[in-house]
Amino acid sequence: MITSVANPQVKRVCGYVQKAKERRKDRLYVVEGPRMFEEAPSDSVRKVYVTEEFLQKCGIASISEKQAGQEGNSRNQKIYEKLRSVGYETVSPQVMEKMSDTSTNQGILALLRWPEYEWDGLLSKPDGVYVVLEDLQDPGNLGTIFRTAEGAGVSGVIMTGETADLFNPKTVRSTMGSIYRVPFLHEASSSAAIERLKGRGITVYAAHLKETRSYDCFDYTKGCAFLIGNEGNGLRQETAALADSYVRIPMEGKLESLNAAVAAALLMYEAARQRHFGINV
Amino acid sequence: MITSVANPQVKRVCGYVQKAKERRKDRLYVVEGPRMFEEAPSDSVRKVYVTEEFLQKCGIASISEKQAGQEGNSRNQKIYEKLRSVGYETVSPQVMEKMSDTSTNQGILALLRWPEYEWDGLLSKPDGVYVVLEDLQDPGNLGTIFRTAEGAGVSGVIMTGETADLFNPKTVRSTMGSIYRVPFLHEASSSAAIERLKGRGITVYAAHLKETRSYDCFDYTKGCAFLIGNEGNGLRQETAALADSYVRIPMEGKLESLNAAVAAALLMYEAARQRHFGINV
Repeated sequence: MITSVANPQVKRVCGYVQKAKERRKDRLYVVEGPRMFEEAPSDSVRKVYVTEEFLQKCGIASISEKQAGQEGNSRNQKIYEKLRSVGYETVSPQVMEKMSDTSTNQGILALLRWPEYEWDGLLSKPDGVYVVLEDLQDPGNLGTIFRTAEGAGVSGVIMTGETADLFNPKTVRSTMGSIYRVPFLHEASSSAAIERLKGRGITVYAAHLKETRSYDCFDYTKGCAFLIGNEGNGLRQETAALADSYVRIPMEGKLESLNAAVAAALLMYEAARQRHFGINV
Repeated sequence: MITSVANPQVKRVCGYVQKAKERRKDRLYVVEGPRMFEEAPSDSVRKVYVTEEFLQKCGIASISEKQAGQEGNSRNQKIYEKLRSVGYETVSPQVMEKMSDTSTNQGILALLRWPEYEWDGLLSKPDGVYVVLEDLQDPGNLGTIFRTAEGAGVSGVIMTGETADLFNPKTVRSTMGSIYRVPFLHEASSSAAIERLKGRGITVYAAHLKETRSYDCFDYTKGCAFLIGNEGNGLRQETAALADSYVRIPMEGKLESLNAAVAAALLMYEAARQRHFGINV
């Protein structure tokens, strides 16, 4: 059991929790809580840290592992089996608190390998729906967009420019597990990303206040991509100019814009809606 | 100019920033930044605090007020005029930092009276769209729902149960000014709120996983209300049971739910969409 917060492993985990640079260097990230552990692809798990208390909750008594999992509910049973299969290290409550990014940790924390995708795989669905996020700054918005993208059946999320780090603990939490399931790519240049999409015959739409036609007047049943810009400044002008078409999300009142995650959700779900219920132009 | 952080006014503002109880007692709240000040209804402004640096930015030189505002752009001009009209007090940068809820303050902070609405006025539109938020916990979600509600032309937001405090500085910020324009009410009991809505002939919908019909299969062109529950637990069972109808937001993948602000946005904008473009059942 690790009981010292000065232990090199603890320092390493803290580095991954706190620093994007450390995460990027080793292509690793940290997830917390039983649910994020349960949903994590087993082959991506590099290391699991748990408290004794957590093990007991799952029915894993450290003294007699034979009865382990038998008293727990089905989620605990699954977690127990996964822990046995991937292995784990126990840590003291103080060490868990030190490593955790949350104010009340849940007693389990795992170090995972980054999911890795390539352009060819990402764009393999000719009629897919894609989202391009340029300079998106808020970690909560980024995670929420991943979560909504899974719900809407989006084929891939492409992050460009200065978009926030997907592996930031707050972002990872807000994805609610979608980070494991929604394919994504980082591409520094928005124009390079758009070129790739257009090269596959995917129509690129930019939400823009200049457009007069509402977002639900377009046909999204073929391959399409939505460009979503920075929370404060929107899309860069040169990026918006590359879109095949502008679309407008109508707004009553005196608002200048909607929240970026809300705008993305409306577009992604309009595409999903049309695919299930036909177009309403 | 207030230069001491021990000044009673400073302590009072800090109380309003930090404590819901203080805000509730005096029915006051704090907004920050030129934009929130500019959009604030003048008759709600109780006190304005600015730094010298902010005044200079707006073209208000403390030495010669005659040239004030003349060099600024139109927003600065508006802010200058409003400052002159409602009055202001200058504070030192240290005092502003002490009072501000943000890590980098914008040099202007105002103390405002709560907007107050009544049931009769709120429900005066028979074909209005309403949102009922029960036990909504995240300040960012709450603010985002207000912002989206303005965009979708919602007639009122009703907050029930343990819903987060609307006047929390983070929530106020995320409303992007909608807090001034979207009518709202607090009502401890969800059932009392639903009874009021039904009494006006408003159809009450609850987003629910039990329903098989998708949210876009219902007619929202008459008076309607959407019930949105807690982020982790959804609606209380007894509240969901009071709805006239359940609606389902379809989800691909392995998600259990969407973010509450996203779910609310999809429902509010579906209602707005139908009102502009007809129903697509």
